[in-house]
Amino acid sequence: MIRLACDYQEGCHPKILERMVQTNLESTVGYGFDPYCESAKAKIKQACGTPNAEVYLLVGGTQTNSTVIRAILRPCEGVIAVTTGHVNGHEAGAIEFGGHKVLTLPSHDGKMNAQELDRYITGTFADSSWEHGVIPAMVYISQSTETGSVYSLSELEAIAAVAHKHGMPLFIDGARLGYGLASEGCDVTLKDVARLADVFYIGGTKVGTLLGEAVVFTNTRYAKNFFTIMKQSGAVLAKGRVIGLQFDTLFTDDLYMQISRHAVAMAMKLKAALQAKEYRFFSESPSNQQFVIMDNDKLKAFEEKVQVSHWCAVDEHHTAVRLCTSWATTEETIDRVIELL
Amino acid sequence: MIRLACDYQEGCHPKILERMVQTNLESTVGYGFDPYCESAKAKIKQACGTPNAEVYLLVGGTQTNSTVIRAILRPCEGVIAVTTGHVNGHEAGAIEFGGHKVLTLPSHDGKMNAQELDRYITGTFADSSWEHGVIPAMVYISQSTETGSVYSLSELEAIAAVAHKHGMPLFIDGARLGYGLASEGCDVTLKDVARLADVFYIGGTKVGTLLGEAVVFTNTRYAKNFFTIMKQSGAVLAKGRVIGLQFDTLFTDDLYMQISRHAVAMAMKLKAALQAKEYRFFSESPSNQQFVIMDNDKLKAFEEKVQVSHWCAVDEHHTAVRLCTSWATTEETIDRVIELL
Amino acid sequence: MIRLACDYQEGCHPKILERMVQTNLESTVGYGFDPYCESAKAKIKQACGTPNAEVYLLVGGTQTNSTVIRAILRPCEGVIAVTTGHVNGHEAGAIEFGGHKVLTLPSHDGKMNAQELDRYITGTFADSSWEHGVIPAMVYISQSTETGSVYSLSELEAIAAVAHKHGMPLFIDGARLGYGLASEGCDVTLKDVARLADVFYIGGTKVGTLLGEAVVFTNTRYAKNFFTIMKQSGAVLAKGRVIGLQFDTLFTDDLYMQISRHAVAMAMKLKAALQAKEYRFFSESPSNQQFVIMDNDKLKAFEEKVQVSHWCAVDEHHTAVRLCTSWATTEETIDRVIELL
Amino acid sequence: MIRLACDYQEGCHPKILERMVQTNLESTVGYGFDPYCESAKAKIKQACGTPNAEVYLLVGGTQTNSTVIRAILRPCEGVIAVTTGHVNGHEAGAIEFGGHKVLTLPSHDGKMNAQELDRYITGTFADSSWEHGVIPAMVYISQSTETGSVYSLSELEAIAAVAHKHGMPLFIDGARLGYGLASEGCDVTLKDVARLADVFYIGGTKVGTLLGEAVVFTNTRYAKNFFTIMKQSGAVLAKGRVIGLQFDTLFTDDLYMQISRHAVAMAMKLKAALQAKEYRFFSESPSNQQFVIMDNDKLKAFEEKVQVSHWCAVDEHHTAVRLCTSWATTEETIDRVIELL
Repeated sequence: MIRLACDYQEGCHPKILERMVQTNLESTVGYGFDPYCESAKAKIKQACGTPNAEVYLLVGGTQTNSTVIRAILRPCEGVIAVTTGHVNGHEAGAIEFGGHKVLTLPSHDGKMNAQELDRYITGTFADSSWEHGVIPAMVYISQSTETGSVYSLSELEAIAAVAHKHGMPLFIDGARLGYGLASEGCDVTLKDVARLADVFYIGGTKVGTLLGEAVVFTNTRYAKNFFTIMKQSGAVLAKGRVIGLQFDTLFTDDLYMQISRHAVAMAMKLKAALQAKEYRFFSESPSNQQFVIMDNDKLKAFEEKVQVSHWCAVDEHHTAVRLCTSWATTEETIDRVIELL
Repeated sequence: MIRLACDYQEGCHPKILERMVQTNLESTVGYGFDPYCESAKAKIKQACGTPNAEVYLLVGGTQTNSTVIRAILRPCEGVIAVTTGHVNGHEAGAIEFGGHKVLTLPSHDGKMNAQELDRYITGTFADSSWEHGVIPAMVYISQSTETGSVYSLSELEAIAAVAHKHGMPLFIDGARLGYGLASEGCDVTLKDVARLADVFYIGGTKVGTLLGEAVVFTNTRYAKNFFTIMKQSGAVLAKGRVIGLQFDTLFTDDLYMQISRHAVAMAMKLKAALQAKEYRFFSESPSNQQFVIMDNDKLKAFEEKVQVSHWCAVDEHHTAVRLCTSWATTEETIDRVIELL
Repeated sequence: MIRLACDYQEGCHPKILERMVQTNLESTVGYGFDPYCESAKAKIKQACGTPNAEVYLLVGGTQTNSTVIRAILRPCEGVIAVTTGHVNGHEAGAIEFGGHKVLTLPSHDGKMNAQELDRYITGTFADSSWEHGVIPAMVYISQSTETGSVYSLSELEAIAAVAHKHGMPLFIDGARLGYGLASEGCDVTLKDVARLADVFYIGGTKVGTLLGEAVVFTNTRYAKNFFTIMKQSGAVLAKGRVIGLQFDTLFTDDLYMQISRHAVAMAMKLKAALQAKEYRFFSESPSNQQFVIMDNDKLKAFEEKVQVSHWCAVDEHHTAVRLCTSWATTEETIDRVIELL
Repeated sequence: MIRLACDYQEGCHPKILERMVQTNLESTVGYGFDPYCESAKAKIKQACGTPNAEVYLLVGGTQTNSTVIRAILRPCEGVIAVTTGHVNGHEAGAIEFGGHKVLTLPSHDGKMNAQELDRYITGTFADSSWEHGVIPAMVYISQSTETGSVYSLSELEAIAAVAHKHGMPLFIDGARLGYGLASEGCDVTLKDVARLADVFYIGGTKVGTLLGEAVVFTNTRYAKNFFTIMKQSGAVLAKGRVIGLQFDTLFTDDLYMQISRHAVAMAMKLKAALQAKEYRFFSESPSNQQFVIMDNDKLKAFEEKVQVSHWCAVDEHHTAVRLCTSWATTEETIDRVIELL
């Protein structure tokens, strides 16, 4: 069985595992204060061009989103996201567990529109009864998005400008940040993300590690007591070095971007083949997730060989499915899938 | 530097790492539904003698405690623990974040007394204004405890009887369950724990894994929607197999108890040496954590070679410190430490 | 200045105040266990035809909604409401503060459609990844609704049937229940509401009292520990009799329905005048709230004499406004308003 | 039956009710923005000598404590209180519902000791693992306390100094503030309370109103969005004037202190009689609550005529009971009770 359903189906990049074997019996302090975590954080700050940032290493994406959001928001404040945002529909109410409402804007192929954001915030506070409602206080977007799309630099700048005009922090969910930055035609760099966001994270789980997400607070006033808030959220790993070592490896010799580019190259090869075979697409994606519309009969046969994600029914006879590549996807796998299409 | 400050300073048991290397590039489904998780769960149920239990694999101890407790308690209900219980002082308010008060009983060398528990519950409901207070609804204990002590079988049976008499579930925090069960003179088995608790967990992080705690609901009525509650708590690992494979290895050929017995043997060797040198102990521990009272000058010199945990000041000139062994502690290390005492 | 902006602008029905004066210096027990509360609860159960129901007296609407919902839902569960539902937009995130997401369906003139509800629930659980999302577990509707509309008996029966088919309780927000039941053409009685809902409340604040909402659990399994949950929510009034006496008065000699019918009669007179003057309506309402579209210039002049609520801009030159009647609205007031239109 | 069990057994001071009757049918805006609320707030600020304070009117004590505390604390922060503090044991976990732990110090006849407070805070942050625990961030005391005792000015100044030295706000629960300030020998004034606390409240429910507590933020940086946080907590009364009018009356012609002094005078008369009859006291109280130890047989007979609160069993044959006076207690009542002792 070939699995393209998601981008977290294999273990980790072999270089990571190699170092884990080498260092396994070393004795270090716990909770993320070991030399590997220190080194990882230094390299991440260097790569981001933000020497004064604070970096924290957490375990997974939902945990990271909920911990960052509740660390920043006060009671009765909400976070603005598009309807397709991970925090809105895919986290079993983790944000609400933290006491906060997700305030939704329309999704444009997975993306938020800066003008709509501005109108929404302005309109909320223009309402004479705004004090009876949830107060918008933070903007959340994903790069790349949940549907594979990628914000351009000008789009990101516009959103950051609106958020900051209204005194709100911009939080960028980078669970797939590598695949976003390496996507076809992307004009955004890691340094741009660090410059525009107040806080963002660099996804490890989907981009080469066993687990782990690196949160970067470029605006450190939002990081007060963040370690203890992580602890309260169950997000501090006792053997913190397990994450530190992985990010240290990813941020050595540009491995993070190198494996991200590979995944995107595999996705683009697949996309080209799908286009050549005249498949229709459910969304236009330049990154590692491709959303294709398949005839249900065809899909049934295809799924005997290739595991994909069912996204939604398009009509009675067609289904939108997701095919993902990752750092671990081989060219042989893509060639076989193309044959099967 | 020798490190005996805690039992999570090294990576994982080499057999685990070996299997991670072997299986690293296999492609599996995510979120804990892969064959390694399935196998681990089956082996755990077998070892517990509870074929109908439900097993869930979480990441860390604080996360596990807070997720289990909030899954079981309803609004205005609290969990009963001793003052030294991990949920009371060491989790940055994780239980309160879930909306619940920790109701405390005195700690007797880390343990709860069944009669005091009974009196506390009876007394609470005998108060005519009990409906204005937090309602006790769950009992939490740790085996082994935070101070190294271990409940005997009769003590556990007495606590379970009291909890069940009052219609409350008993939750056993087994972050160090292996070291407890392998402790000197312990008459409790894993099957006893499974029989007496409604829910408990088998600690991995401190007993041989990189991370991971296996929650066992023997009383499955408390497990409703537990997967989704884990998700909401950020406790579902995308690459669930990372935990599954580790527990599968620990529960193959009795590795879990084998490495636990080793850690306790090392602790007993250290304890005997401390006794021979006439050190005073802060608590009486038959398990892998030893709490010793040291002269501050002596301690200062000792700490140049051996890292320990400062527990508390005993008087102006003496400090209680913790020395831990683990699955990774070698006999050579213990011999060197004994020389340095 | 005439005020028609809302239905909570005056004090309370004079009969209530009269009894408050009579009983003011009587000494009673607190927290709602006094004879006036007991009498009120008995009369309410009688009026509902539910001798086995449990009745609780709370202070206000948002408090009641949030306390009832968090008493019933477990972690990771959500409540289904229409987008215009009070719990969704008008309570500053009170439901989310309790840890729960409001799951929204389209509003049809303020009402939920039973078929859409069924499709939504069925669709949610048909999704293979439903365990990663919020679990729908409760249905919330208002009678009358936030836009003045009123469910017919067959509509209520259809919604109750869908909720119960899926094992979910139906919660009816009756902040304006009197005005709903007394609305023009309404075929629903209080007994119908009690029969179809698992829990609902009878609004006092907007229908004749100074404050107070009477929650009726007809399905008492949802009421476990409700008094203590109220206490935890800050919803127990020390001088509970202040609410008890008011409901006791409202449920004596049918006063509740009598004053509700008066308010609706005043609203219908106003509506007829508006129709005669060819005003357009923003929603079709047979109850005490009328939503009218006014020319902005006309509105400006009108507001110098009559205070109304601005609902929303309809276009550049028109605004939808709300005019409310209540138990306290006099015919003279309505006549003067009609003159001013 | 004479009732001295608590100080909230009657309605409200007759002057309040008189004004409610006078103004009942006036039409005002809702939610606390009416002229009566405005007037009450102005008079309270005047009485406190704090023209720049912000005043908010809430419904009850538990609600006020929980709303103020969660408005101020951030995630993982806790509030320090004595074990007998109302927030610790009498609010059904309302503070924990808000996500925060109550950190307890010993109670000295109901009071906190400033030096113990200082040692506790200093000790907490001196612990090398403090970042793994709840972070103390706020000090809560009551004046008068739950056991009737009253802080002297120097005691209050010492506690405020410690709190502020550590950068923490001091919150004074004034549910019985009038009775505290009017207590025998008290050298504290309302202006002192306003000067030393960052936020406090003036209790209405127990001191003459039907309901209502007036929160005064003298340090307004803690009041950000407080109205909306109140709304989210269900603490905004739609007919806000019901509270406004009551406080406006209490703060006219010094009524608040006048009725407080009366209650204390009645308590002192009762206390003198108890002393003359050689009763033992459970606590030494100069305010309106008296805690007396009674022989159980004697108590049984006494309770046939006088309702008191059972506080706790002192030994097999004796019980500590509470007798409260209030603004409504008549001298005739006290004379009759003295006869019955």
